[in-house]
Amino acid sequence: MPVNLNPPDPAALLPIAGVELGFAEAGIRKAGRRDLMLMTFAAGTHVAGVFTQNSFAAAPVQVCREHLAAGKPIRALIVNAGNANCGTGAAGLAAAQRTCTAVALTLGCEANEVLPFSTGVILEHLPVDRIEAALPRCKGSLAAAHWADAASAIMTTDTVPKAYSARAEVDGRTVQVTGIAKGVGMLAPNMATMLAFIATDAAVVPAVLRRLVKEVADASFNCVTVDGDTSTNDSFVLIATGRAGNAEITAAGSPAYVALRAALLAVAVPLAQAIARDGEGATKFITIRITGAADAAEAARVAKTIAHSPLVKTAFFASDPNLGRLIMAIGNAGVQDLDTGRIDIWLGDVRVLAAGGRDPAYREEDGARIMQPPEITVRVALGRGAAEATVWTCDYSYDYVKINAEYRT
Amino acid sequence: MPVNLNPPDPAALLPIAGVELGFAEAGIRKAGRRDLMLMTFAAGTHVAGVFTQNSFAAAPVQVCREHLAAGKPIRALIVNAGNANCGTGAAGLAAAQRTCTAVALTLGCEANEVLPFSTGVILEHLPVDRIEAALPRCKGSLAAAHWADAASAIMTTDTVPKAYSARAEVDGRTVQVTGIAKGVGMLAPNMATMLAFIATDAAVVPAVLRRLVKEVADASFNCVTVDGDTSTNDSFVLIATGRAGNAEITAAGSPAYVALRAALLAVAVPLAQAIARDGEGATKFITIRITGAADAAEAARVAKTIAHSPLVKTAFFASDPNLGRLIMAIGNAGVQDLDTGRIDIWLGDVRVLAAGGRDPAYREEDGARIMQPPEITVRVALGRGAAEATVWTCDYSYDYVKINAEYRT
Repeated sequence: MPVNLNPPDPAALLPIAGVELGFAEAGIRKAGRRDLMLMTFAAGTHVAGVFTQNSFAAAPVQVCREHLAAGKPIRALIVNAGNANCGTGAAGLAAAQRTCTAVALTLGCEANEVLPFSTGVILEHLPVDRIEAALPRCKGSLAAAHWADAASAIMTTDTVPKAYSARAEVDGRTVQVTGIAKGVGMLAPNMATMLAFIATDAAVVPAVLRRLVKEVADASFNCVTVDGDTSTNDSFVLIATGRAGNAEITAAGSPAYVALRAALLAVAVPLAQAIARDGEGATKFITIRITGAADAAEAARVAKTIAHSPLVKTAFFASDPNLGRLIMAIGNAGVQDLDTGRIDIWLGDVRVLAAGGRDPAYREEDGARIMQPPEITVRVALGRGAAEATVWTCDYSYDYVKINAEYRT
Repeated sequence: MPVNLNPPDPAALLPIAGVELGFAEAGIRKAGRRDLMLMTFAAGTHVAGVFTQNSFAAAPVQVCREHLAAGKPIRALIVNAGNANCGTGAAGLAAAQRTCTAVALTLGCEANEVLPFSTGVILEHLPVDRIEAALPRCKGSLAAAHWADAASAIMTTDTVPKAYSARAEVDGRTVQVTGIAKGVGMLAPNMATMLAFIATDAAVVPAVLRRLVKEVADASFNCVTVDGDTSTNDSFVLIATGRAGNAEITAAGSPAYVALRAALLAVAVPLAQAIARDGEGATKFITIRITGAADAAEAARVAKTIAHSPLVKTAFFASDPNLGRLIMAIGNAGVQDLDTGRIDIWLGDVRVLAAGGRDPAYREEDGARIMQPPEITVRVALGRGAAEATVWTCDYSYDYVKINAEYRT
C-alpha cells in the first residue's frame, strides 16, 4: 500500500508546449495493460539525461548515451514496460536500435533522434515486433494533455502513477514544468532513478541543461532508496522545449537558472518521494536526515547505510523504536574516526540518543508514539562539521518479500 | 527453520584439556532460559581474539580489547545473552568491568584476566546484579564435557546450538579442537562474527595464536553474511591451553602450524556455515563462489554484493532462477572497468550466463531444478584474473521480516 500517495489529477497537470504523449497496450509481457509510451518533442527542444552506474547497464541505456553524445536534436522517446532489455548482449542492442528505427519511421525523423527506455524483467529478449505493431496506436493517441496516461503506461510494480507539475517566473515569463516517474523496486539510484522524465517549456542552452539534470538528480532521485539495489536501467531525462518565450538560459547560477531549478525540484522531489511512498510493500515513508557531517559524501553514506539496513527497515515496519539498530547502522557506515560520544539522534521531535548514549530523558512510550504514524523522520547529528544529507526510503514488510518472491510468476 | 542443521551430539564433542564450561539461567532478559556461560582456562593458556569494526563497538568488546592488550594471562570468559551492553556509555563500560570483577572474585583471579561478552538487545543497561547472583551456579556446573550446554547458553535468535570438534596430528601428538558459536541476525562479520569461541589443547606461542585467529576468521566467519548488518558485538576468540604435549608452535607456516590451522578451520568453517544455515528465517543455504577476479578484495566485494541484495535473497526464497537480479548485483559491486562480456554464471552445474548474456543452451527448467533444493551454489567467473572468494548466506523469507519485526516484543 502506498504511503499517503494519490493518483495524479489529470486536470492539474500542466501541458508543456512542444511535448505530446501517446500510449498503447503492446502486450510486451502481459496482455490488457498499458505498457508502451511515446513522447514527442517539437523542433528546437534540448534534452539531457543521467543514467545508471551499474556495470550491466541495459541496452537502451547504452543507446541513449550514444544518441545523446551524437549531439543531434532529440525528437522523441519511447518507453516500454515489462521487459528491461538488459543482459541481452548484441541482440539487445540491435533490438533497442530497431525500436528507434521504428519510431523514426512512424514520426518521420532519424533513428538517432530517438531515445529508447525499457523497464521490467532482465535477461529476456525484447519483443520488438509487438512494439512495432503498437506504435501506430501510440502515435494516434498523441496529445499534450496525456501526462497522467503516460505515467500509467510506464509502471511495473508501481501501484500509483506518479506525475507532478510546477510553475516558475523566469525573465518575467511564466515557465511550466511537468514530470513523470516510475519505481519501485531494485531502487537505489546512483545517478538517477529508474525512468523519470521532466519537461519544461523554458529555453535553456544544452550545456546548462546538462548541468541542471545532474543538480536536480542529486537533490531528488539520488536521495531515494527502496532496497539498496541499483537498477540496470535507471534513467532520468530533462526536456526543455524553449516555447515559454524566456531569454535562453545560458549561465548556471543566474537568477533565471535558480528560478527554473526550483521549479524542476518542485516536480522532481515529490516524484522521488512518491517512489519511496510506493516502494514495494511500503507501509511507512521514512525521511532520514543527517546533519553535522564532515562532508556531504559522509552524510549521504550514513543516511544510506541506515536506509539500506534490513534490520532498521523491519523495525520501522513493526513501528518499533529500536534505537540499537540505528546506532548499529551508523557504526557500519565506514566513517573514519567517528566519535560516537558526540552523536545525537532524534525520532521526530524526541531526542532518543544524547552524546552517544540513550538520552536519560527518553521514554520508550515517546519513541513508540513517533513510530506509529505512516510518516517518520529520523535525524542524526554527527557533531563533526556542517554538511548534511537527506534520504527518503520506506520500510520492509511481508509484502516486500511477497512481491519479490512472486515477481516473475 | 535451519537448513540441514542438527543440534550437536554432546558425546561427539571433544573435551579440551584445561577448559571447563558452566552455565546458568540468570534471567537477563527473559526467565526460564539459559543465558549465562562461564568458560575457565588452566594456567599457561594463551588467548587471542578479533572483534567488530563497527564504530559503536559494545562495552564488552572495548573491555576485551583492553584486557587482551594488557598481556596478562586470560583465565576465564563470561558470556551473557539477552543484552548487548552496547550504546550504554560509561555506565556500560562500568557494567562490563564489574562483571569481570565478579567473575574474578568467584574464581580467585584478577579482573583483567577475564574477558566479557554480551549479545542481545542494544541500548539497555546490563543487569549485572543478575549475573552476580547466577555466577555461583555457573561455577558449580563447570565441567570439561559441557560444550553443548555452553553453546545453548549463548543463543539469542538461534534455533539450534552450534558446536563442532576436530583433531589434528601436530609433531606426532594428537591435538583436539572444539568450538562454539552463535548468530544469527545483524550478521555480516567484518573481523569476526557475533560470538565464536574455539579452544585447542595445542601449545602455541601468543604471536602465532594472534596470526591464527585472523587467518581462521578470514576463511570462516568473515565469509558469512545473513543481512549485511555488521553487529556491534562481534567477537571471535581462539584459546590454546597447551596441554596436548606438542612442541610449542613458534612459526607461522611450519608443518605444525599448517596442521593446526586445518583442524581449526575444520571447526570454524562448519560453525560459520551453521550461522548461515540458521540465519533468521532461512529456508535456503546459499554458497556464492567468485572466481577469476583481479584480486581477493574484488572477489569478496562481488560475492557480498550478491549475498546482501534483498532482491537476490527473495528470489532464492521463491526458488526462482532470477538471473537478472544476479547480474544487477554483480554490476553494482563497484568493480572498475568490469567487462560484462567476459562474465559466466553457473547455478549449480548449469551455466546460465555465457560471455555476459543468457547462455543459448540454458533452459529455464534447468535453473528451476537447481533452485528447488535447500542448498544452492552460485558461481560467477569474472574473467579478470585468478583471485577467488566464497561467501555463505541464506535467503530472505517472510520469517526474516517476522522475526525482526517482533524481536523486542
